[in-house]
Order: sequence, then structure tokens, then C-alpha cells
Amino acid sequence: MTWEETAKAKKNKVDSGIPKEWSLKSIPNSEELRSTNEYIEGKLNGSEVKITNSTIVQLSEQISLGNLSALEVTRAFCHRAALAHQLTTCCSEIFFERAYKKAEELDEYFRKNGKTVGPLHGVPISLKDQVNLEGIDSAIGYVSLVNKPKTKDEVSNIAKILEDAGAVFYVKTTTSMAMVSCCTSSNIYGVTLNPFNRNLSSGGSSGGEGALVGAKGSPLGFGTDIGGSIRIPSTFQGLFGLRGCSNRLPYCNVTNSFAHAPVLASVIGPMARDLDDLKLVTKLIIDSKPWVYDPKVPPIPWREVVDYPKKLSFGIITGNGESKLHPPVRRALELARQALISQGHEVIEWKPPLSLSECRDLAGIIFGTDGYQEIADECANSGEPIMEEVLSFGGGGDTLPPGISHIHEYWEMGKFRYEYQQKVDEYWLSTASQTSTGRPIDGIISPIWESCSFKAEDIGLFSLCYTDTFNILDYSSITVPITTADKDIDLKDSSYDPISDHDKAIQDYYDAELYHGTPAGVQMITPRYEEERAIHLASVLRDSLK
Amino acid sequence: MTWEETAKAKKNKVDSGIPKEWSLKSIPNSEELRSTNEYIEGKLNGSEVKITNSTIVQLSEQISLGNLSALEVTRAFCHRAALAHQLTTCCSEIFFERAYKKAEELDEYFRKNGKTVGPLHGVPISLKDQVNLEGIDSAIGYVSLVNKPKTKDEVSNIAKILEDAGAVFYVKTTTSMAMVSCCTSSNIYGVTLNPFNRNLSSGGSSGGEGALVGAKGSPLGFGTDIGGSIRIPSTFQGLFGLRGCSNRLPYCNVTNSFAHAPVLASVIGPMARDLDDLKLVTKLIIDSKPWVYDPKVPPIPWREVVDYPKKLSFGIITGNGESKLHPPVRRALELARQALISQGHEVIEWKPPLSLSECRDLAGIIFGTDGYQEIADECANSGEPIMEEVLSFGGGGDTLPPGISHIHEYWEMGKFRYEYQQKVDEYWLSTASQTSTGRPIDGIISPIWESCSFKAEDIGLFSLCYTDTFNILDYSSITVPITTADKDIDLKDSSYDPISDHDKAIQDYYDAELYHGTPAGVQMITPRYEEERAIHLASVLRDSLK
Repeated sequence: MTWEETAKAKKNKVDSGIPKEWSLKSIPNSEELRSTNEYIEGKLNGSEVKITNSTIVQLSEQISLGNLSALEVTRAFCHRAALAHQLTTCCSEIFFERAYKKAEELDEYFRKNGKTVGPLHGVPISLKDQVNLEGIDSAIGYVSLVNKPKTKDEVSNIAKILEDAGAVFYVKTTTSMAMVSCCTSSNIYGVTLNPFNRNLSSGGSSGGEGALVGAKGSPLGFGTDIGGSIRIPSTFQGLFGLRGCSNRLPYCNVTNSFAHAPVLASVIGPMARDLDDLKLVTKLIIDSKPWVYDPKVPPIPWREVVDYPKKLSFGIITGNGESKLHPPVRRALELARQALISQGHEVIEWKPPLSLSECRDLAGIIFGTDGYQEIADECANSGEPIMEEVLSFGGGGDTLPPGISHIHEYWEMGKFRYEYQQKVDEYWLSTASQTSTGRPIDGIISPIWESCSFKAEDIGLFSLCYTDTFNILDYSSITVPITTADKDIDLKDSSYDPISDHDKAIQDYYDAELYHGTPAGVQMITPRYEEERAIHLASVLRDSLK
Repeated sequence: MTWEETAKAKKNKVDSGIPKEWSLKSIPNSEELRSTNEYIEGKLNGSEVKITNSTIVQLSEQISLGNLSALEVTRAFCHRAALAHQLTTCCSEIFFERAYKKAEELDEYFRKNGKTVGPLHGVPISLKDQVNLEGIDSAIGYVSLVNKPKTKDEVSNIAKILEDAGAVFYVKTTTSMAMVSCCTSSNIYGVTLNPFNRNLSSGGSSGGEGALVGAKGSPLGFGTDIGGSIRIPSTFQGLFGLRGCSNRLPYCNVTNSFAHAPVLASVIGPMARDLDDLKLVTKLIIDSKPWVYDPKVPPIPWREVVDYPKKLSFGIITGNGESKLHPPVRRALELARQALISQGHEVIEWKPPLSLSECRDLAGIIFGTDGYQEIADECANSGEPIMEEVLSFGGGGDTLPPGISHIHEYWEMGKFRYEYQQKVDEYWLSTASQTSTGRPIDGIISPIWESCSFKAEDIGLFSLCYTDTFNILDYSSITVPITTADKDIDLKDSSYDPISDHDKAIQDYYDAELYHGTPAGVQMITPRYEEERAIHLASVLRDSLK
């Protein structure tokens, strides 16, 4: 088989997981159907609409009271996921029958024992394609990895933990080839669209999760992030997405690119519409003591935030010194600032002795350590071409990054990263002299991306400054949805005098009509290993906005 | 200047830090003076003998009661260190005047405030040459790094923490070139001898600390360990030495070889004659929250061991499958086993699905990643030759190790290490099915080295199996002194039938007369990040021996 045939067969196989009765006769194009929500709900029955609009906390309560069965909850999300997938191409694997079987077992257990197996009993959870499940591929966007189902021994630790808590798996979601891109497309599945605006990208590399959870085809899913891959799709789809500190959550047995490259590592984390759901699942994983089975996870138990001070100070990042934010993102940031101030909190400028672009540049160099040889080799295995966005991500243009010529260069990158961390940590502590609380700032609010997304066929224009920086620093970050772009408010500023061609290109890209209705948010950042505090501060911001 | 001149001038400068009245007119050779203790105490006054035989806990109490001044404690250890250095060559830096000044300031503070600055007020602490102090070299055995004093900004985090607690620094101690060797010698200082037996090596690479603390010229010092460098000199000198899990104690701003090589990292840890002293200082460092200033340290507070079960199970390692232990080491291990059993504990064979030599071989490959180019470059800077033991350590014979030709080989090493860790962790958990407690074993007792040391001029014969393995696994390990070699008990077994030439060479090396009086011990091993438990179990073993 040619790679094209393998890819096509795989896509057909995935699509065939959707039962006939849920198949759309024809798929409307983005002009016919821009936003998916209303359309999808028109195809669901009332119970399915209600279930898929519920939070995990609500579902879990109803299931534990016997008011909802695991099977009906699972079927509702399967149906909605099937519709979301047809409109956005968000699923890389579909296995509804297996999910129903699992749900029936859970219902049987509940009938017999009068109790649930755990806090996620019967709750469907979606997983980025990287997460290994028995008997299912983890192709991570490569044709060469199609039809290589994972064995029982390869199942991801995090999947086991979720399953032990009663979660039901039913789909895996698309990623860009090798997770190297801020959009989500591959030679197997094509492009994953944004359910809020099908002209636009779902972001990447966890764009399948972003689109699926954004379309309410899943209450919560797991993405991964080495340079923004959780946060970009989370904000593009108006979700809370947690990029915790390295190895706070177990990555063990999750398929990865450059899997054992130690200088800068990807993290796995939840993406959800509801912050309390995100907290519940994060806590549940940490409470399971993931360090017992993953040597990389330090034994740091969940430390519930109690008695946190009422008056808080926040740093704010308003720009990267390279290019101006698009109007909706600027407004979201300003709304967040004003909401915090309105609640009596303080917001001061974040001005560390290190620019966002320095961090971004270091991350780019680290990503390119092997000159993407692993990617080139994996593509050569099937004959498929390297995706254009991967090339563009690596070297700019259509070449691979140069890579290193000596191991000392790699070690030097680690040295720089460590020094950057020390420098910024020190600055964070020093902010105590600027706050009225006398403490260092409690968190930082920052944009995530210069825009609310970009056209689905586009790649590359925007900058990873706001995301990469916190991977380099390894700070905890959680995205917080703030508002949606509004063509009547978020007007293009045609009098703006750009500081560079790049800045001009970004401003020119803005189109109030195109972006209308697309989510805009910020990220809340705390120091390393402070996932609990990040979630708490995100809830402070969320509540301030009410 | 030639490198020989630079080296000689440096050694002279260090030696000139010893005041005339403490200079020995002539240095006895090892035949004239085998063991240093009695000889040294003959040169000290009664108060100095008493002080240098005290524990930190005792000194600290007497200082806080005003019964001892920081200055007299400091002077006593300076005197004893001066004598120890002349007999063993254990110091790489001597700065008594600076120590007296610091001690006087502490005494002044105590007079004024009626209290101490911290729990180490006036307690001399020694530091391996790697630890950076302002205005002092960290030459780590290289001529090229002589006369390059460290600046204020380069001071090691751990030195700051100790100094904040009131510690007085007065010497730094020798290491082998680049810390790559299990003996301690360099072109600057020559060979560091074992104060218990000056025919023998102090071990390495923290051999200066081993000799100094063993000779009671310091109550406690800090060494580093990437393959045994704390544990080898600790056991050769009858000390408790803690190799904790990576980054539990802060390594930030400690000069190092391959400083930013991430796959396998050196750790810093205390070496002491008294276990309670070791615990006090380890706890003090962790209580200082070292993670605030060292991004690599995870925020794991000190977790005091309370209500630990009374009946314990231990795994025991009795051999490496390659070569038999020397009689005193075999006896030490047997004494440890019997002592534990006599107290009602259980000791079972440790048989993980991975041999010690596999771990040792992986460590060797990781050490040789850059083909020792850093070492060759650093030597080329001064013109000094690479030490023979470094060459022997790297490739065997007189060549450098080959090193890697592609970054993927390096990442692959990290993969292997991670898999080894998972495999052995799983085995550890599985021991629950073999113990009578129903829990997995609480700890492992293991030899540290096949012999109680080796001739000072020798290198290389022995194996790093017992040490390297726990660096690869990143388990916590603490050495526990058990006994001393006794020529009347530890007889050479001339009927032994060796399994290989290597085994024969090791057995032939044993000489009951040569080793007589030299310490022999074991290590107590716990899982990752379980330093508190390792110290607790070491105290159980220590108390069982009483």
C-alpha cells in the first residue's frame, strides 16, 4: 500500500466507527455552517443535550444517585462526539462499542453493589492520540504508525488511573504530525477545525481535544504541552486547560516525539469547559499517587489551597515587544485586569530581566536539537512528506532545523534554561517590594496567543512567546476563558503604526468579521509545582468576571 | 608558568595556610605511621581532643549554653584538620584566618543577643572542592582552574544555607580530577590517603572529605556522588554518608563536571561520623526550602518518620555475580543481617529482574557520553596530562571512551534508565508477596564496594556495581559503618575457586594484614525521595548493632 492508501484506509476506518443513524448526509461547509453548537443540538434529543451540557460534577452526582446510567451518559457523549467529529475532524480513533460495553459493566457493578467504582464512574473522558490504550493505535499524526495497536503493557499510566476511577474512554483525538505545530493537521486526517468558527483552526497540537471539548463532545480531555499545545487549543475553544509543571502528572507510557529528550519535556494535562471539573480530575490523579508507578513524578501530594489571602497581587503581561495583540485578545486581557481590580486585587506590570522572545528562541533551539531527524525518519518509513507546518515550525521556510553538532551544545541549552529559571524566579520574589500586600505577586495574567485563532489553512504567522516562555520556566499555567470576539466592539485599529513588518502582518491579519464569536482568554501563571494555586487563582479570576 | 609550576605553587599556597606551630617537622611515611588517630590526638591539647570528638548535637548545645565559644570550636577543628591534611593530603583549600573571623563575629553576636544565629552556630563544616565560596577556587582537580576564585554571585546555594544556620567554613577538600575516579588524586595535590590506614586510598571522588571527617578534622562535610563518590569514601572511612535522590538537596552553583548533562546527575550530600548529626544537617537544609532558590529542587518538605512499623523487612544484596566480596566486607554484611534479625526483623534476598552489572554498564556509557572531551579540553588549557585513573575509568586502558555520535544515542540512554527504574520499582512493590509483614520490603542492605579500600597507588580493579546501580535507579542510600577488618577473623580463603580472572584478581588482592583495622560497612537503600526513611532505617541498623 502507498502511504496515501494507508492514510485513507485509516481515516475511513475511524469514520466507520460512527453508526449510520448519526452520520450526516452531507457535511456543510464553513460558509453554510460557521459555528457548530446550535446545529449539533438540533440533532440531539433533549436528554442528550442536557447530559452533554452538564459538568462532570453534576453527571457524577446523578450517576451516583442512580438518576443517570453510565450507558446513557456514554451514548449521549458518543453521539455528540460523532457529530462534532463530522464537522471538525477532531477524532483520531472512535470506539463507541467498546465504551458501551465498559459503561454496561459499570452499570452492572452499580446495580450489584449499590455504589460507584470511583468518582468518574460512567464519565466519558477523551484522550489525545498520544495516550496509549490497549488494542488501539497511537499514530500521533504519522502514517507509519497506523495499524500498530498498543499492547496491554504499553497502556499509559494516566489512562489506568482514570479508568480505575470509573472513566469511560470512547475516542482519541487528533494531533498535528509529531505534535510539532500550533495547528492540528496530518496526512491522515487533514485539518481539525474550530467548532466555534469553522473558518478557523482549533489550534494545536492538542487541537482534537480542543475541538471536541469545545463542541461539548467530551466533558474533559487530556492534551499535552511542550510549547503551548494544551493552552493554544484551550483558549481557541474557550476552555480551561492546565499545563502543570513537568511531571506533576504522569507521562509514563504516553507516546511522544523526542520522548526521552530531557532538557525540555512535554507535560500532560486536562482541558475542560468547567474549572471545578478540571480540579476534580487533577486532584484525583495526584491523589492516586502517580509517583508509585512513574519514576519521574516527584511525590508531592495534592495540597488543597486553604486560607489563601483575600487580597491578591497579580503581574500582568501586556505585550511581547514584537507585535501587538489582536483587539479581542487585548480586550480579554483588559477585562481580566479590571475584574481583578474590581474585587480589590492589585495588578502590576510583569517586567522580568528576560524577554519573552529570549525564552521563545531558546525553546525553538531545544525543539530543533536533532534537526527533526526523528520526524524525517518516521516519515521516510511510510513515504509520506513532512507536513509543511512542521517544516515551518522548525526552520522557517521549508527546511529542517540545523540541529546540534556536539552533545555539549545540548547540555549548554540546559544550562541556559536553568539560568533563565533562576533569573525569573529571583525577579518573582523581588516583586514583594512592589506589591501592597508585602508578598511577591500571587500569579501572572498573560495573553496566550496574539489572536483568537487563525484561518484553518494557515500556519506559522503568530508567535509562541506567550506559551513557550512558561515551558522554559516550567511554571504552572492554566487558561481562563474571558469573552468572545465581537465585531462591533473589537474593531480593527487602522491607524496603528506597526513597529515591524511582522507586527504589521499580524495586525493586517485581523478581521473583525472573521473572528466574530470566537473565544478569547488569558492564562494564569504560578511558580513551579503550584498547580493547586494556579487552579485557585483561576477560580478567583473566573469569579471576578461574574 | 608551566602547569607543573602552577600546580606546585597552588599546593604550596594551600599548605602555607597551616600555621608554623601546627606544622609537622617531618611527615612520617605509612610504615612509620599507619593509622593517624592516636598520633593526631597526641599533638592536640585536652580541650581540642574533647571538642573534635564531640558530635554536632553536643557542640551546638555547649555553644548555645555559652560553655564553648565558636572560636575555640573552630580553632580545635582547624588544628586537627591541619594535622589530618599533613598526614593524608585531604585539603584543597585552607582558610583558617577567615574562619576565625567568622567565629569571632558569631561569638560577638551571641554575646550581644544571648542567642545563636541558628542550629549550626559556630560549627565547622567542611566542603568538597566543588562547593563555591567567594574568593576561593573551585579547581576540582584541574590545574587550569587554579587561581580562578569564585565571585559572590557564584556562591553555592548549599553554602549559603549552611552559613545562614551559623556554620563556619575553614577548609575545602580534595577531589579526583573532574570527580571521575573512585580514588582521590590530582596533578595538583597528589594522592589523598586513608587516615585509618595510610597504605590505603581514602576512596573517591569525595576522598578529601572522607579522610578529613574520618580523621575527625571535621564533624561533617559535604561530598557529591554520581556513581559512588560519597558512599565509597564514607565506607572506606567508617562514616555515615547520604546519597539522596537527585535534587533533594540543592546542587545549584556547585562546580561540576558535565554540569548540565541531564540524563544522570550528581547529587550533593553529607558525610559524618554521627548519624544524628547527619540527620540534623539534612533536615536543616530541607527546612530552609531550597526549592525557592534552586529551580531543580522539588518542593518536598522534611517528612519526619513517625510511627514507622516496628517489625521491618529488608532485602539483602550479597553479591554482584561477578566477583566475591573481601572477607571483612562479607562479615560486615553478615553482621548487619544478623543484627537486624536479632531485633525481630526479616531479611530476604533482593533479586530484581535486572543485574547490578547491567546498571553499572549503563552508568559507564552515560558517563562517557562526550568521550571525556570536556576533561581533555580542560587539561589542554593548562597542558597537564589526563590522570591515569580518569582514563582507566573511562575506557579501560589508556584511551578516552568513544562517546556518542548522535543525540539520539544520548536520549536512548535516558530511555533505558527510565525503563530500568520502572522495572525495579515494580519488583520492589512485588516483594510484598514475600514478606511476612505484607508490605513491600522497607529497605535494602547492600555492600558498597568489594573491599575496604585499595592500595593508595592503585586504581581500577574493583567494580562500581554496588554504587552505580542506585545512581541509575536514583534510590536514596546511606552508608552505615559496621565493623573494622580484623586480620585474625577475616582470613583469606585460599580454597576459593574463582569464577573468572577478574574474580581471582580481586580475591588475590585481599591481604588480611594490609587491611587490618580498616572500616567496613554497608549501605541502606530506600526508594526515590525517601531520605527520611533511609536515615531512619540506618538508625534501626545502627541500634541493632549495639
